[in-house]
Amino acid sequence: MNEFELINRLTNSLPTNKSLVTGAGDDCAVLDLGIPDRLLLFKTDAVVEGMHFTADTPPEQIGYKALARCLSDIAAMGGTPNSAVITLALPRDFDVGRVEKIYEGMNALAAKHDVAIVGGETTTNPERMLISVALLGTVPRGKCVLRSGALAGDAIFVTGELGGSLKGKHLDFEPRLAEAQWLVEHFPIHAMIDLSDGLAGDLRHILKASHVGAELFSSAIPVSRAAKLASKAESSGKPPLLAALTDGEDFELLFTVASRDAVPLLDAWKKRFPHLKLSCIGKIVAGGKLTLRDKTGTRSLSAHGYVHFT
Amino acid sequence: MNEFELINRLTNSLPTNKSLVTGAGDDCAVLDLGIPDRLLLFKTDAVVEGMHFTADTPPEQIGYKALARCLSDIAAMGGTPNSAVITLALPRDFDVGRVEKIYEGMNALAAKHDVAIVGGETTTNPERMLISVALLGTVPRGKCVLRSGALAGDAIFVTGELGGSLKGKHLDFEPRLAEAQWLVEHFPIHAMIDLSDGLAGDLRHILKASHVGAELFSSAIPVSRAAKLASKAESSGKPPLLAALTDGEDFELLFTVASRDAVPLLDAWKKRFPHLKLSCIGKIVAGGKLTLRDKTGTRSLSAHGYVHFT
Repeated sequence: MNEFELINRLTNSLPTNKSLVTGAGDDCAVLDLGIPDRLLLFKTDAVVEGMHFTADTPPEQIGYKALARCLSDIAAMGGTPNSAVITLALPRDFDVGRVEKIYEGMNALAAKHDVAIVGGETTTNPERMLISVALLGTVPRGKCVLRSGALAGDAIFVTGELGGSLKGKHLDFEPRLAEAQWLVEHFPIHAMIDLSDGLAGDLRHILKASHVGAELFSSAIPVSRAAKLASKAESSGKPPLLAALTDGEDFELLFTVASRDAVPLLDAWKKRFPHLKLSCIGKIVAGGKLTLRDKTGTRSLSAHGYVHFT
Repeated sequence: MNEFELINRLTNSLPTNKSLVTGAGDDCAVLDLGIPDRLLLFKTDAVVEGMHFTADTPPEQIGYKALARCLSDIAAMGGTPNSAVITLALPRDFDVGRVEKIYEGMNALAAKHDVAIVGGETTTNPERMLISVALLGTVPRGKCVLRSGALAGDAIFVTGELGGSLKGKHLDFEPRLAEAQWLVEHFPIHAMIDLSDGLAGDLRHILKASHVGAELFSSAIPVSRAAKLASKAESSGKPPLLAALTDGEDFELLFTVASRDAVPLLDAWKKRFPHLKLSCIGKIVAGGKLTLRDKTGTRSLSAHGYVHFT
């Protein structure tokens, strides 16, 4: 049983209450607790030594990454982060200086986005460090973007460049908060997600939630320099396009808008965010299939991102 | 460096923002996000295999305990829990049935208190299971009880009976939510905390936050049957009173009220909660000392709960 199958089984019977607007299954939960003009967003995420960072990772970057991953989820809803609580599970022989530097990295990123770190729990995890962050945010009522709003005919956009994140970007990526807030303020964004599992996998989450399919244009997918270099350097490496489709931890925004908004959005984006690439990489179609079109024809993409010829 | 020293060092420089009313250092953080009549409470807590439960612990009780610990912290502020997110860190060879039963225990307790479980994160922790719960609650404005409000002359109360929790109670204790909500509604509670580290240690947190001392009455401290039995059964065991003072995980409420409210409160409590003991165990005094009085005189109690003769 993999992670998604387990989550599906567990989330089938979770208790709800009248505050709950959108529960498990989107980037954040959405709650209505009676704030006059806003809804609450609630999210948790964890990083584990040996999985998401190593003993060699600079500690400031560990703290940065732990918080940035949650910030990226708040961004994916069009939200503004507010407050975080931290569970810090440490081996018994932890290095106090290292833990302080982890907090320095986390605190600096929090302060940059006006996020308060309001509490925490320290506990022992004898074999390795684990940091779990729970983050609270808000979003204006009527502006919250879910995964479930994509419509056939929508244009699909992605920010930045994809693939090769593990070469470095996964430790210092910029959560796209300002960009997402600008997007939801200026355009009716139909669906949005942040890319954590890889473009092909995360787009699948939108398609499943929206009951639609998608066709991606191979030549439009923005492949990162890191993915290209890795492909050249390692003879066993992924082709760059496959890396862009399937590598995880890009933490870019993937979203859809009505096709009539595509060109105005691109124009306005270039003026507002001239240094961050925005690419129209395909379109939403009816049916549930995800395909990739290039000069030679159309191929299907599996849920796990691997390319199969049809 | 122990847990408290590390926490002190880390919490000295946490980022804040204008939403933050009370940050790290109380049972929950308190946030003002503009809900007209209420403040938000935010808390995280974790349980780790081998520390808070074992491979033999019935899985439903693991889930129950993971959530109940956080509920107890919401109770300690006089609050009402609302929503939780769960980080579930699992060994690679986890037993799906066991994980489902953990969730059953957690879900049943959540449903009982109208708490929605709104999301989660599953990750790998190869050597042992770890469950971190982040809980959101609310409290009526003006009714939130902190650790810092105790005044010299106050009466000190504790619910239930203390000591010996590890004999079983730590897995099925009842978070004192209804009792705490009733208390803050009917009496001006000056300070409150839930007992997780042991009476002597947790009372110290109130004394430190309130800049006061306390005198406990030895004969008034409600010693649990479990603590008495353990003392009899194990020749090397703690004397029952010492167990009641220093054993952790009681999850009872410890609070102070003005002395003029003490008798009315006891009377009203007996009518409202006839099956749960409430004991007046001492009084708040000026100065920072914590002492225990019995027939033979007065002894001081250290921050770690050990009894020293003065």
